[in-house]
This record gives sequence, structure tokens and C-alpha cells, in this order.
Amino acid sequence: MNDRVVNFAAGPATLPLPVLEQVQRDLVSLPGVGASPLEVSHRGPWFEDVIGEAEANLRSLLAIPDSHHVVFCQGGATMQFSMVPMNFLRGDDRAAAYVVTGSWSAKAEKEAEKEGSTRVVWTGENDGFVRVPRDDELAPAMSDRPAYLHITSNETIHGVEFASTPAAPPDVPLISDSSSDFLSRPVDVAGHGLLYAGAQKNAGPAGVTIAIVRDDLLPRIPDGLPTVLDYRTYVQNGSMYNTPPVFAIYVLMLVTRWLKHEVGGLEKQLEHNHEKASLVYDAIDGSNGFYRGHADAGSRSLMNVTWRLPSEELERRFVQEAAAAGLVELKGHRSVGGIRASLYNAMPLAGAKALADFMWTFAAAERTPA
Amino acid sequence: MNDRVVNFAAGPATLPLPVLEQVQRDLVSLPGVGASPLEVSHRGPWFEDVIGEAEANLRSLLAIPDSHHVVFCQGGATMQFSMVPMNFLRGDDRAAAYVVTGSWSAKAEKEAEKEGSTRVVWTGENDGFVRVPRDDELAPAMSDRPAYLHITSNETIHGVEFASTPAAPPDVPLISDSSSDFLSRPVDVAGHGLLYAGAQKNAGPAGVTIAIVRDDLLPRIPDGLPTVLDYRTYVQNGSMYNTPPVFAIYVLMLVTRWLKHEVGGLEKQLEHNHEKASLVYDAIDGSNGFYRGHADAGSRSLMNVTWRLPSEELERRFVQEAAAAGLVELKGHRSVGGIRASLYNAMPLAGAKALADFMWTFAAAERTPA
Repeated sequence: MNDRVVNFAAGPATLPLPVLEQVQRDLVSLPGVGASPLEVSHRGPWFEDVIGEAEANLRSLLAIPDSHHVVFCQGGATMQFSMVPMNFLRGDDRAAAYVVTGSWSAKAEKEAEKEGSTRVVWTGENDGFVRVPRDDELAPAMSDRPAYLHITSNETIHGVEFASTPAAPPDVPLISDSSSDFLSRPVDVAGHGLLYAGAQKNAGPAGVTIAIVRDDLLPRIPDGLPTVLDYRTYVQNGSMYNTPPVFAIYVLMLVTRWLKHEVGGLEKQLEHNHEKASLVYDAIDGSNGFYRGHADAGSRSLMNVTWRLPSEELERRFVQEAAAAGLVELKGHRSVGGIRASLYNAMPLAGAKALADFMWTFAAAERTPA
Repeated sequence: MNDRVVNFAAGPATLPLPVLEQVQRDLVSLPGVGASPLEVSHRGPWFEDVIGEAEANLRSLLAIPDSHHVVFCQGGATMQFSMVPMNFLRGDDRAAAYVVTGSWSAKAEKEAEKEGSTRVVWTGENDGFVRVPRDDELAPAMSDRPAYLHITSNETIHGVEFASTPAAPPDVPLISDSSSDFLSRPVDVAGHGLLYAGAQKNAGPAGVTIAIVRDDLLPRIPDGLPTVLDYRTYVQNGSMYNTPPVFAIYVLMLVTRWLKHEVGGLEKQLEHNHEKASLVYDAIDGSNGFYRGHADAGSRSLMNVTWRLPSEELERRFVQEAAAAGLVELKGHRSVGGIRASLYNAMPLAGAKALADFMWTFAAAERTPA
């Protein structure tokens, strides 16, 4: 592991080392198969087992009820931004309600406008996306029963996260883009109509998207959609109407197996994630304002910690010196600047600790005149 | 290599062993990067180089002119079945012309019906999809200038292939699903408006789709499409509007590098492919009718060789005994039965030879009463 950096990238992101080592071991030839996982047909017993275990592990980790289907799509969350309104808004005379807590929810809402009527029921834009709404801020907008309520459970760029799933009336399906906190904590899946996530943060490599959809929503889907954009296609064909991203699903399966058997489930993982994020937030809060955290206390993301330094020049030096110390990919998203440390499940505690130590040292050196 | 089977799967399919070995070597940590290719951000110099070389190698191998963009999508050819008519038929008052030479072109045409008016200008359905049309059979249908002419250059299931690109009038864009013979031979890219291919046959693993689109078609794309289904999004953002399937593109790049530097280009590869397919077709033709090839002589695919045996019972035994000899995935597609041997670029000559030898022996044993 010595030649590996500590990778704080926002996604694609660091993966569990034991998973990588298993992928490496079997890369040229899977035992008992005699072919690479990059080569095996999706229409055979090996992949049937892989996709079966991936779904079973997800069901077990997230306590997904039988009322919900688990399917694997391509195209990332961005494809879901379009699939959601094509399936659940097109042809509907109700508006869809969108909560805008950052760049990703804003993008989701923009795509939905192409398919029907939308309403931004809450936005954090005016104060720079520093928090998520309280339930009482959303409740009034639910009175006219939107087609669905869309949230982004964690905003990867701004680093704001819902600490718990917001309440929606029973007849308003809650739809969540959970790309960047999927599998980072237990979630009330039953409270969701649809929950989707690009894999490339906590669940696997880029190239596969998980969608968990409640069965009773399927009859709402209008006929005539492109087959590959209709959730029913995935449900009815076990995600194999056409060739699925076999290898990406294989790695995802290994990650879920690691979470279940090595980590011991999502409660345990959440404890680790709290511990890691606390190290970094403590370095921010203990810096006497040298580091300025972006998110309000109650909306701080455990996955993406974002902050500023007193100047862009200092931010550049921070990123450079951290990289020289083996702590890489700390530059904030190009649209907002600053620093971002992504602390997904596979980031070891030692990685977060190394970053926090670096932060304390860097701040102390800068604040002490040479 | 001893523990590797000879894999005749139609896709995902066998990949070049040197590519697999390099992927394996660097799987946990890329030299100079310190992270797995499954983990590296797409917004950095490593992936910029990867996607840059992938495009450059494709341009060099296929002599792609500057008039054409090379982009990388997700969703396989099936997603292209929808993207093509959304981009180039929706809102057009002309019909799109489809040539139906097998299951895949039939599916492509069905999806296009959802977006506009289509016309099947030739179909091989009545004679069981045994051949492609001659140019003179297509010419009359071009007189009323369809929105485009769509073909499937190789039908993976039926094993029929265009030996050369059919002619279309200059003002009718030729659009080809070339999934299963992409990179297997030189192609007149300049003669195409759009050429697309799922990677999982000759170009890489499942999960990435190559689209080569002529620049002058882009202004025809209607506004208001889902961003991720608009070819302009890929052209304008270097295929990185959203997170691309990084790892799949990395493997694709290695395959194109192998084709360019190890194989020596597509003329060479075509020679190899002729040689391999001839071994199998000779075993069919020399069997005195024991093996009945599916495709007519002039339309025989070099990629997917399909044939029948005198009975389904014999076909089952053929597949079983071949598998016992390490020759796997020879069962024909479930929709047509029989035998199918896919002989993509990465299938070594020795693999095709082993299959042909097995065929001669099996036929001789069956025709000689015990």
C-alpha cells in the first residue's frame, strides 16, 4: 500500500483496498471460469451470481423492503435527472417539487423542466447553499400534492447533507439523488418512492447507477418512452434488457460484500464516517477562523467537507503542500473554489487523520510569523 | 494463460491477453499516480491523457477525418437506438430509412418509431435474415431523401455482415450500428454521418459506447433534448459533461494501443480475421451438409459465425463437448438457437483453429456409425 496516495477525490473516488486486491488477483482469469471479469458474458451463471449478490447485499445493508425494486442503470445521476421526469412527470398535470440545495439539485430541476411543470419549493441559492431546509419549510409546499418531491440527500460540490430523510406526505413520492452519500449511513428506503445513486463515490467505479424504485410507482410510467429509459425495462428484465456494465457491477458487488462482512453494516460505517469527518471539522473549528467551513453546522456533510482559506493564494499552497505529503485531490470543485475533502466509506481513518494533522500544522505555520 | 478458456462469447467477449495483463499489473496503483484506474478522477491529467490517446488511436486506426467528432457515451447500442432518432428524426417531416438485416436493426427501427416516421426500406425477415441487401436494392428508396439511412453493419445474432459500406446519396446521412464489427476492418468513416458501437466486442469491456458523428449534422439536433442524450453535449464537453465510465475508457484505450502497435493496424487485423473465419467456414463447407451455415456466402460475418447441426440434440452435445475441451460460449443466441462462434479481434488464431479441429472431429465421429 506504500505506493498509494491518500485520495480525497469526489468521485471516481478511493475504493477499499481489499476489493482492489481481489479484482487484481482475478483480473486475467476468474477461478472456475477461466476468463477475466472484463470478458465474461452477462448471460451466464457467473454474472447471475454477481448481480444476484449485489442486489442481496444492497437489500440487506439498506433493509430494502419487498415493495422496492433494485435495478442497475448506466449514465450516472445525470441520466436519472432525465429519467425521473420522463417516467414520473411527462404527461402529468401536476408540477414536480424540487428542493435546490446546491449545483446537483439545480441541474436535476433544469432537466425536469423539459418534461413537465416544476416548482422549486425551497432553494439555498440566496445564501450560497450553506444548508438544507427544515421539514417545516417544506411542509406548506406539499399541500397541493406535487407529482413528486425531489431532493439531493448530499450535495457533493457544496458539502451540505440532509442529516435525516425529510418527511413527505404519503401520497407524494419522495425521490432522492443519493449519489454521494449512498451506503454511507442507514436510510429509510421505505420512505422513498425512488432513490438513485451513481456508484462512483461509495459503491464502486463510475459506469453504473443504482436505482431503488417502489413498485406502486411503475403504473404511473407513460407508454412510449425509449425502452432503455423506462424503469419498467430494468425491473422486468433484471437489469439485463441490454448488456449491463458487467465489470462495474462486479466491483460494486465486491464493495457491498466488504461493507457487509468486513465493515459490519451501515451503522458501523456511519460511526467511522462520523469519526473521520469530526477530525477534519475539528481542525476547521479549532483554527480561529483560518479555515472557514462552508456549511452550517446542522447541514454539514460527512462525505464532502468544504472550506476556504484566507486567500486563493493560500488555498493553492495548501493543495500543493498537501499533495507533496501524499494527500491528493483536495482542490474544491472548479465552480466554487476553495478546498474539498471527500471522506467516502473507503477513506481509512488514518487518511482523515493525516489530513487533519496537516491542517493543524499548516494553519499554525501560517499564523506564526516566520 | 493455461487456466484461460477459449471464449467465443458474443459480447462481453475475449480481450487481448497483453491488455488484461497490463490492467492487472496497475490495478491497485498506477505508476506515477498512486491510485487504481478504478479510483482516479476524470478531471485530472491521467485521464486526460487516457481519453486523448483513445481518441487519437481511433482516429489513426480508422483514418477518421477532421469532419467527424469522436465521443464516448454510455448505455450501449441500445441507448443509441433512441439517441439517433431523438437527435436526427424528432421534429423532422421526413421519414428515416431503416435496413433490417436481423434482430438488432429491427430493434433500432422500433425505437425510432417512437420519435418520428420510419420506413423499412429493405428487410431480410422473409428469408430468415441470411443476407444483406445489394446497393441496387437500396437505391430506389433513396429517391425521396429520407432523414437518414440506418444500417447494422454486422448482425451479431444472425451472423450477416456488410462486406463493404453501402452507398447512400451525399445528402442522406448514413448511420451505422457497427457494434460487432467495429475495429475489425478498415471502414470508410467519411462516408458515414454517424457510426456507433458498443465497446464490448472488439473495443473493450461493456459500459462504454463509441459514437463518431459528422460535424455538419449537429445543427440538425433539436433543442430541448435531455442534456445527456444530445450528441452536442458530448462534442462540446469532450465526453465529460458528467462523469464518464473512466475505467472502461481506459481499457478501450489499451485495446486501441494494442491494435495500433502490436497488431499493426486494421488491414492486418482484417487479414487475421479472414484467416480465422475461413477455418470455421471451411469446416462448415467441408462437412457435406452436417453443419449448415446460416448466412449466404456474400453476407457471411467474419465476427459471428452461425450454423446448425442436424438436430437440437446434436447441437447440445456439440456445445457440451466443446466446453469440455475448453471451447466455451458456443451456444447460439436464445432467440435463434444453433451454434454461434464469435471470432473478434482478440480471439487468437489458435482458438479458431482449435474450434475448427473440434468441428472436423465431431462431424467425422457423428457421421461414422460406431
